[in-house]
Amino acid sequence: MGSTAPWRQLLSKSLDSNSSLRHATYFQLATVRPDGRPANRTVVFRGFMEGTNKLQVTTDSRTHKVEEIRHCPYGEVCWYFTDSWEQFRIQGKLDIIDETDTEPMRLLMRERAWFASSPRSRLQFLGPQPALPVLHTEAETKHSLDPSAGPVGTFCLLTLDPEQVDYLDLKNNQRIVFKLFTQSNGIHEWMQEEVNP
Amino acid sequence: MGSTAPWRQLLSKSLDSNSSLRHATYFQLATVRPDGRPANRTVVFRGFMEGTNKLQVTTDSRTHKVEEIRHCPYGEVCWYFTDSWEQFRIQGKLDIIDETDTEPMRLLMRERAWFASSPRSRLQFLGPQPALPVLHTEAETKHSLDPSAGPVGTFCLLTLDPEQVDYLDLKNNQRIVFKLFTQSNGIHEWMQEEVNP
Repeated sequence: MGSTAPWRQLLSKSLDSNSSLRHATYFQLATVRPDGRPANRTVVFRGFMEGTNKLQVTTDSRTHKVEEIRHCPYGEVCWYFTDSWEQFRIQGKLDIIDETDTEPMRLLMRERAWFASSPRSRLQFLGPQPALPVLHTEAETKHSLDPSAGPVGTFCLLTLDPEQVDYLDLKNNQRIVFKLFTQSNGIHEWMQEEVNP
Repeated sequence: MGSTAPWRQLLSKSLDSNSSLRHATYFQLATVRPDGRPANRTVVFRGFMEGTNKLQVTTDSRTHKVEEIRHCPYGEVCWYFTDSWEQFRIQGKLDIIDETDTEPMRLLMRERAWFASSPRSRLQFLGPQPALPVLHTEAETKHSLDPSAGPVGTFCLLTLDPEQVDYLDLKNNQRIVFKLFTQSNGIHEWMQEEVNP
Protein backbone atom coordinates (compact mmCIF):
# COMPACT_ATOMS: atom_id res chain seq x y z
CA MET A 1 0.00 0.00 0.00
CA GLY A 2 3.02 2.25 0.16
CA SER A 3 3.05 2.79 -3.60
CA THR A 4 1.01 5.52 -5.15
CA ALA A 5 -2.24 4.29 -6.71
CA PRO A 6 -2.75 4.92 -10.46
CA TRP A 7 -5.86 7.10 -9.91
CA ARG A 8 -3.75 9.50 -7.81
CA GLN A 9 -2.30 11.04 -10.98
CA LEU A 10 -5.77 11.85 -12.32
CA LEU A 11 -6.77 13.32 -8.96
CA SER A 12 -3.62 15.46 -8.75
CA LYS A 13 -4.34 16.81 -12.22
CA SER A 14 -7.92 17.66 -11.23
CA LEU A 15 -6.74 19.39 -8.07
CA ASP A 16 -4.24 21.40 -10.10
CA SER A 17 -6.68 22.40 -12.83
CA ASN A 18 -9.30 23.49 -10.27
CA SER A 19 -6.89 25.01 -7.76
CA SER A 20 -8.23 28.56 -8.19
CA LEU A 21 -11.48 27.40 -6.59
CA ARG A 22 -11.69 27.37 -2.81
CA HIS A 23 -14.24 24.55 -2.96
CA ALA A 24 -12.01 22.27 -5.08
CA THR A 25 -10.85 20.60 -1.86
CA TYR A 26 -14.40 20.04 -0.59
CA PHE A 27 -16.12 16.72 -1.19
CA GLN A 28 -19.22 14.90 0.01
CA LEU A 29 -18.76 11.95 2.34
CA ALA A 30 -21.56 9.38 2.58
CA THR A 31 -21.87 7.08 5.58
CA VAL A 32 -24.61 4.84 6.96
CA ARG A 33 -26.59 5.81 10.09
CA PRO A 34 -27.25 3.26 12.85
CA ASP A 35 -30.85 2.95 11.54
CA GLY A 36 -29.49 1.82 8.15
CA ARG A 37 -30.28 5.04 6.28
CA PRO A 38 -27.60 7.02 4.46
CA ALA A 39 -26.00 10.26 5.66
CA ASN A 40 -24.15 12.75 3.48
CA ARG A 41 -22.22 15.95 4.21
CA THR A 42 -19.52 18.21 2.80
CA VAL A 43 -16.06 17.84 4.34
CA VAL A 44 -12.64 19.29 3.53
CA PHE A 45 -9.82 17.22 2.05
CA ARG A 46 -6.71 17.46 4.28
CA GLY A 47 -4.30 15.63 1.98
CA PHE A 48 -3.17 12.01 1.91
CA MET A 49 -1.70 10.35 4.96
CA GLU A 50 2.05 10.18 4.44
CA GLY A 51 3.19 7.07 2.58
CA THR A 52 -0.38 5.83 1.95
CA ASN A 53 -3.35 6.39 -0.37
CA LYS A 54 -5.59 7.28 2.60
CA LEU A 55 -7.62 10.49 2.29
CA GLN A 56 -7.59 12.61 5.44
CA VAL A 57 -10.45 14.65 6.91
CA THR A 58 -10.67 16.24 10.33
CA THR A 59 -13.83 16.08 12.40
CA ASP A 60 -15.27 16.78 15.83
CA SER A 61 -15.78 13.69 18.03
CA ARG A 62 -19.20 15.08 18.99
CA THR A 63 -20.64 14.91 15.44
CA HIS A 64 -23.04 12.19 14.33
CA LYS A 65 -20.61 10.93 11.69
CA VAL A 66 -18.18 9.66 14.33
CA GLU A 67 -20.94 7.55 15.90
CA GLU A 68 -22.07 6.39 12.43
CA ILE A 69 -18.57 5.33 11.45
CA ARG A 70 -18.07 3.33 14.66
CA HIS A 71 -21.25 1.49 13.69
CA CYS A 72 -20.46 1.02 9.97
CA PRO A 73 -16.85 1.84 9.02
CA TYR A 74 -17.43 2.26 5.27
CA GLY A 75 -17.77 5.46 3.30
CA GLU A 76 -18.04 6.78 -0.20
CA VAL A 77 -16.59 10.12 -1.16
CA CYS A 78 -18.15 11.94 -4.10
CA TRP A 79 -15.76 14.61 -5.33
CA TYR A 80 -17.01 16.72 -8.20
CA PHE A 81 -14.67 19.25 -9.82
CA THR A 82 -16.84 22.08 -11.05
CA ASP A 83 -14.33 23.59 -13.50
CA SER A 84 -13.09 20.45 -15.23
CA TRP A 85 -16.40 18.50 -14.97
CA GLU A 86 -14.73 15.46 -13.43
CA GLN A 87 -16.11 13.24 -10.68
CA PHE A 88 -14.27 10.82 -8.41
CA ARG A 89 -16.37 8.37 -6.41
CA ILE A 90 -14.04 6.84 -3.84
CA GLN A 91 -15.20 3.86 -1.78
CA GLY A 92 -13.29 2.53 1.16
CA LYS A 93 -12.91 1.81 4.82
CA LEU A 94 -13.05 4.65 7.33
CA ASP A 95 -10.91 4.90 10.42
CA ILE A 96 -11.07 7.38 13.28
CA ILE A 97 -7.99 8.47 15.22
CA ASP A 98 -9.07 10.22 18.41
CA GLU A 99 -7.38 11.23 21.65
CA THR A 100 -7.89 7.77 23.18
CA ASP A 101 -5.72 6.09 20.53
CA THR A 102 -2.74 4.19 21.92
CA GLU A 103 -0.49 3.95 18.84
CA PRO A 104 2.19 6.66 18.84
CA MET A 105 2.35 6.82 15.00
CA ARG A 106 -1.40 7.37 14.77
CA LEU A 107 -1.33 10.03 17.47
CA LEU A 108 1.49 11.72 15.59
CA MET A 109 -0.63 11.81 12.39
CA ARG A 110 -3.50 13.32 14.39
CA GLU A 111 -1.18 15.96 15.82
CA ARG A 112 0.19 16.80 12.38
CA ALA A 113 -3.34 17.28 11.05
CA TRP A 114 -4.05 19.60 13.99
CA PHE A 115 -1.07 21.81 13.31
CA ALA A 116 -1.76 21.77 9.56
CA SER A 117 -5.20 23.29 10.14
CA SER A 118 -5.67 27.02 10.59
CA PRO A 119 -5.95 28.54 14.09
CA ARG A 120 -9.47 29.62 13.13
CA SER A 121 -10.59 26.10 12.25
CA ARG A 122 -8.95 24.78 15.45
CA LEU A 123 -11.19 27.07 17.49
CA GLN A 124 -14.32 25.29 16.17
CA PHE A 125 -13.38 22.27 18.27
CA LEU A 126 -13.84 24.35 21.41
CA GLY A 127 -17.31 25.54 20.41
CA PRO A 128 -20.63 24.25 21.75
CA GLN A 129 -21.72 20.73 20.81
CA PRO A 130 -22.65 20.53 17.11
CA ALA A 131 -26.34 19.92 16.27
CA LEU A 132 -27.59 20.83 19.76
CA PRO A 133 -30.04 23.73 20.04
CA VAL A 134 -28.35 27.12 20.19
CA LEU A 135 -28.30 28.58 23.70
CA HIS A 136 -28.07 32.27 23.09
CA THR A 137 -26.39 32.80 26.46
CA GLU A 138 -23.39 30.93 25.05
CA ALA A 139 -23.19 33.07 21.96
CA GLU A 140 -20.91 35.56 23.65
CA THR A 141 -18.31 33.03 24.79
CA LYS A 142 -14.95 33.79 23.19
CA HIS A 143 -12.49 30.92 23.05
CA SER A 144 -8.78 31.26 22.54
CA LEU A 145 -6.02 28.77 21.89
CA ASP A 146 -2.26 28.93 22.22
CA PRO A 147 -1.02 28.38 18.62
CA SER A 148 1.60 25.94 19.88
CA ALA A 149 -0.87 23.86 21.93
CA GLY A 150 -1.57 20.33 20.67
CA PRO A 151 -4.94 18.90 19.63
CA VAL A 152 -7.93 19.36 21.92
CA GLY A 153 -9.96 16.37 23.07
CA THR A 154 -12.73 16.69 20.48
CA PHE A 155 -10.31 16.74 17.53
CA CYS A 156 -10.35 13.57 15.39
CA LEU A 157 -8.47 12.58 12.28
CA LEU A 158 -10.65 10.55 9.96
CA THR A 159 -9.11 8.53 7.12
CA LEU A 160 -10.62 6.74 4.14
CA ASP A 161 -8.58 3.88 2.70
CA PRO A 162 -9.76 3.52 -0.94
CA GLU A 163 -10.75 0.13 -2.37
CA GLN A 164 -12.48 1.39 -5.51
CA VAL A 165 -12.34 4.65 -7.44
CA ASP A 166 -14.90 5.43 -10.13
CA TYR A 167 -13.66 8.28 -12.30
CA LEU A 168 -15.96 10.15 -14.68
CA ASP A 169 -14.86 12.82 -17.13
CA LEU A 170 -17.99 14.57 -18.38
CA LYS A 171 -16.18 16.73 -20.93
CA ASN A 172 -14.79 13.68 -22.74
CA ASN A 173 -17.60 11.29 -21.72
CA GLN A 174 -15.07 8.82 -20.35
CA ARG A 175 -15.32 6.64 -17.24
CA ILE A 176 -12.63 4.48 -15.67
CA VAL A 177 -13.09 2.18 -12.67
CA PHE A 178 -10.05 1.36 -10.52
CA LYS A 179 -10.28 -1.61 -8.13
CA LEU A 180 -7.86 -2.79 -5.49
CA PHE A 181 -7.20 -6.54 -5.64
CA THR A 182 -5.27 -8.68 -3.20
CA GLN A 183 -3.05 -11.26 -4.86
CA SER A 184 -2.51 -14.75 -3.42
CA ASN A 185 0.83 -13.56 -1.97
CA GLY A 186 -0.97 -10.82 -0.07
CA ILE A 187 0.24 -7.99 -2.33
CA HIS A 188 -2.37 -5.36 -3.18
CA GLU A 189 -2.67 -4.27 -6.78
CA TRP A 190 -4.85 -1.70 -8.55
CA MET A 191 -6.59 -2.84 -11.75
CA GLN A 192 -8.35 -0.43 -14.05
CA GLU A 193 -11.00 -0.72 -16.73
CA GLU A 194 -12.77 1.73 -18.99
CA VAL A 195 -16.54 1.40 -18.60
CA ASN A 196 -19.61 3.01 -20.15
CA PRO A 197 -20.46 6.39 -18.58
CA MET B 1 -47.98 17.85 1.95
CA GLY B 2 -49.41 20.13 -0.69
CA SER B 3 -48.17 23.27 1.07
CA THR B 4 -44.71 24.62 0.46
CA ALA B 5 -42.22 23.69 3.21
CA PRO B 6 -40.49 26.56 5.07
CA TRP B 7 -36.98 25.51 3.90
CA ARG B 8 -38.10 25.94 0.29
CA GLN B 9 -37.68 29.72 0.60
CA LEU B 10 -34.05 29.34 1.70
CA LEU B 11 -33.39 26.90 -1.13
CA SER B 12 -35.00 29.20 -3.72
CA LYS B 13 -32.80 32.04 -2.51
CA SER B 14 -29.68 29.88 -2.78
CA LEU B 15 -30.63 28.75 -6.28
CA ASP B 16 -31.14 32.39 -7.28
CA SER B 17 -27.91 33.66 -5.78
CA ASN B 18 -25.88 30.87 -7.43
CA SER B 19 -27.80 30.79 -10.72
CA SER B 20 -24.82 31.92 -12.80
CA LEU B 21 -23.13 28.59 -12.00
CA ARG B 22 -23.99 25.60 -14.15
CA HIS B 23 -23.25 23.28 -11.23
CA ALA B 24 -25.65 25.06 -8.84
CA THR B 25 -28.31 22.49 -9.77
CA TYR B 26 -26.00 19.53 -9.14
CA PHE B 27 -26.08 17.74 -5.80
CA GLN B 28 -24.75 14.54 -4.29
CA LEU B 29 -27.22 11.76 -3.53
CA ALA B 30 -26.25 9.12 -0.97
CA THR B 31 -27.97 5.74 -0.90
CA VAL B 32 -27.19 2.38 0.71
CA ARG B 33 -25.92 -0.58 -1.33
CA PRO B 34 -27.39 -4.06 -0.85
CA ASP B 35 -24.22 -4.99 1.12
CA GLY B 36 -24.98 -2.20 3.63
CA ARG B 37 -22.23 0.17 2.50
CA PRO B 38 -22.96 3.71 1.34
CA ALA B 39 -22.99 4.93 -2.26
CA ASN B 40 -22.70 8.55 -3.38
CA ARG B 41 -22.89 10.28 -6.76
CA THR B 42 -23.61 13.63 -8.37
CA VAL B 43 -27.06 14.04 -9.93
CA VAL B 44 -28.95 16.96 -11.48
CA PHE B 45 -31.91 18.63 -9.78
CA ARG B 46 -34.94 18.56 -12.10
CA GLY B 47 -37.22 20.77 -10.00
CA PHE B 48 -39.94 19.88 -7.51
CA MET B 49 -42.80 17.59 -8.43
CA GLU B 50 -45.83 19.79 -9.01
CA GLY B 51 -47.81 20.50 -5.84
CA THR B 52 -45.33 18.68 -3.58
CA ASN B 53 -41.97 19.20 -1.83
CA LYS B 54 -40.47 16.19 -3.67
CA LEU B 55 -37.13 16.76 -5.39
CA GLN B 56 -36.94 15.24 -8.86
CA VAL B 57 -33.96 13.56 -10.51
CA THR B 58 -33.89 11.48 -13.68
CA THR B 59 -31.93 8.26 -13.95
CA ASP B 60 -31.32 5.23 -16.12
CA SER B 61 -33.03 2.02 -14.91
CA ARG B 62 -29.77 0.15 -15.62
CA THR B 63 -27.71 2.08 -13.02
CA HIS B 64 -26.80 0.60 -9.65
CA LYS B 65 -28.71 3.30 -7.79
CA VAL B 66 -32.05 1.97 -9.03
CA GLU B 67 -31.26 -1.47 -7.62
CA GLU B 68 -29.98 0.12 -4.38
CA ILE B 69 -33.14 2.17 -3.92
CA ARG B 70 -35.39 -0.85 -4.42
CA HIS B 71 -33.42 -2.46 -1.60
CA CYS B 72 -33.31 0.59 0.74
CA PRO B 73 -35.63 3.44 -0.29
CA TYR B 74 -33.94 6.18 1.74
CA GLY B 75 -31.54 8.83 0.57
CA GLU B 76 -29.70 11.92 1.71
CA VAL B 77 -28.99 14.76 -0.66
CA CYS B 78 -26.00 16.98 0.10
CA TRP B 79 -26.32 20.21 -1.83
CA TYR B 80 -23.47 22.65 -1.43
CA PHE B 81 -23.69 26.10 -3.02
CA THR B 82 -20.16 27.13 -3.86
CA ASP B 83 -20.83 30.86 -4.25
CA SER B 84 -22.95 31.50 -1.16
CA TRP B 85 -21.26 28.85 1.06
CA GLU B 86 -24.56 27.25 2.02
CA GLN B 87 -25.27 23.54 2.46
CA PHE B 88 -28.60 21.73 2.46
CA ARG B 89 -28.63 18.15 3.71
CA ILE B 90 -32.00 16.71 2.72
CA GLN B 91 -33.08 13.32 4.10
CA GLY B 92 -36.10 11.48 2.86
CA LYS B 93 -37.77 8.58 1.14
CA LEU B 94 -36.91 7.79 -2.45
CA ASP B 95 -39.37 6.60 -5.04
CA ILE B 96 -38.77 5.37 -8.58
CA ILE B 97 -41.28 5.87 -11.37
CA ASP B 98 -40.38 3.64 -14.31
CA GLU B 99 -42.12 2.42 -17.44
CA THR B 100 -43.85 -0.44 -15.56
CA ASP B 101 -45.75 1.97 -13.31
CA THR B 102 -49.52 1.59 -13.46
CA GLU B 103 -50.68 4.96 -12.08
CA PRO B 104 -51.55 7.42 -14.86
CA MET B 105 -50.57 10.49 -12.77
CA ARG B 106 -47.13 9.03 -12.06
CA LEU B 107 -46.59 8.11 -15.68
CA LEU B 108 -47.58 11.66 -16.61
CA MET B 109 -44.93 13.07 -14.24
CA ARG B 110 -42.34 10.75 -15.79
CA GLU B 111 -43.34 11.89 -19.28
CA ARG B 112 -43.11 15.55 -18.25
CA ALA B 113 -39.60 15.00 -16.89
CA TRP B 114 -38.65 13.38 -20.17
CA PHE B 115 -39.83 16.30 -22.28
CA ALA B 116 -38.29 18.79 -19.85
CA SER B 117 -34.83 17.27 -20.44
CA SER B 118 -32.71 18.24 -23.43
CA PRO B 119 -32.68 16.05 -26.57
CA ARG B 120 -28.98 15.48 -25.89
CA SER B 121 -29.56 14.14 -22.38
CA ARG B 122 -32.43 11.96 -23.68
CA LEU B 123 -29.99 10.24 -26.03
CA GLN B 124 -27.94 8.95 -23.06
CA PHE B 125 -30.77 6.56 -22.23
CA LEU B 126 -30.21 4.80 -25.56
CA GLY B 127 -26.48 4.34 -24.95
CA PRO B 128 -24.75 1.13 -23.88
CA GLN B 129 -25.35 -0.15 -20.34
CA PRO B 130 -23.70 2.13 -17.75
CA ALA B 131 -20.73 0.67 -15.81
CA LEU B 132 -20.18 -2.24 -18.23
CA PRO B 133 -16.79 -2.46 -19.94
CA VAL B 134 -16.52 -0.31 -23.07
CA LEU B 135 -16.77 -2.35 -26.26
CA HIS B 136 -14.96 -0.23 -28.77
CA THR B 137 -16.96 -1.75 -31.64
CA GLU B 138 -20.02 0.02 -30.20
CA ALA B 139 -18.27 3.35 -30.06
CA GLU B 140 -19.39 4.23 -33.57
CA THR B 141 -23.09 3.61 -32.99
CA LYS B 142 -25.06 6.82 -33.51
CA HIS B 143 -28.48 6.93 -31.90
CA SER B 144 -31.23 9.31 -32.87
CA LEU B 145 -34.57 10.16 -31.32
CA ASP B 146 -37.68 11.87 -32.65
CA PRO B 147 -38.01 14.99 -30.43
CA SER B 148 -41.74 14.31 -30.01
CA ALA B 149 -41.28 10.65 -28.98
CA GLY B 150 -42.13 9.80 -25.35
CA PRO B 151 -39.77 8.34 -22.74
CA VAL B 152 -37.70 5.31 -23.65
CA GLY B 153 -37.83 2.18 -21.50
CA THR B 154 -34.70 2.91 -19.47
CA PHE B 155 -35.86 6.39 -18.41
CA CYS B 156 -36.84 6.67 -14.73
CA LEU B 157 -38.05 9.58 -12.65
CA LEU B 158 -36.65 9.43 -9.14
CA THR B 159 -38.16 11.52 -6.35
CA LEU B 160 -37.01 12.29 -2.82
CA ASP B 161 -39.73 13.22 -0.33
CA PRO B 162 -37.97 15.25 2.41
CA GLU B 163 -38.46 14.43 6.10
CA GLN B 164 -35.55 16.49 7.45
CA VAL B 165 -33.52 19.39 6.08
CA ASP B 166 -30.30 20.48 7.76
CA TYR B 167 -29.33 23.94 6.53
CA LEU B 168 -25.85 25.38 7.13
CA ASP B 169 -24.77 28.90 6.25
CA LEU B 170 -20.97 29.01 6.48
CA LYS B 171 -20.72 32.76 5.87
CA ASN B 172 -22.89 33.54 8.89
CA ASN B 173 -22.03 30.39 10.84
CA GLN B 174 -25.71 29.58 11.24
CA ARG B 175 -27.43 26.20 11.12
CA ILE B 176 -31.16 25.43 11.11
CA VAL B 177 -32.73 21.97 11.24
CA PHE B 178 -36.23 21.51 9.79
CA LYS B 179 -38.14 18.33 10.68
CA LEU B 180 -41.45 17.03 9.38
CA PHE B 181 -43.81 15.90 12.16
CA THR B 182 -47.11 14.11 11.83
CA GLN B 183 -49.76 15.40 14.21
CA SER B 184 -52.34 13.16 15.87
CA ASN B 185 -54.89 14.21 13.23
CA GLY B 186 -52.55 12.99 10.48
CA ILE B 187 -51.55 16.48 9.33
CA HIS B 188 -47.86 16.93 8.53
CA GLU B 189 -46.11 19.97 9.90
CA TRP B 190 -42.56 21.31 9.55
CA MET B 191 -40.84 22.39 12.78
CA GLN B 192 -37.57 24.29 12.75
CA GLU B 193 -34.82 24.90 15.28
CA GLU B 194 -31.52 26.76 15.23
CA VAL B 195 -28.67 24.44 16.26
CA ASN B 196 -24.93 24.77 16.77
CA PRO B 197 -22.96 24.53 13.49
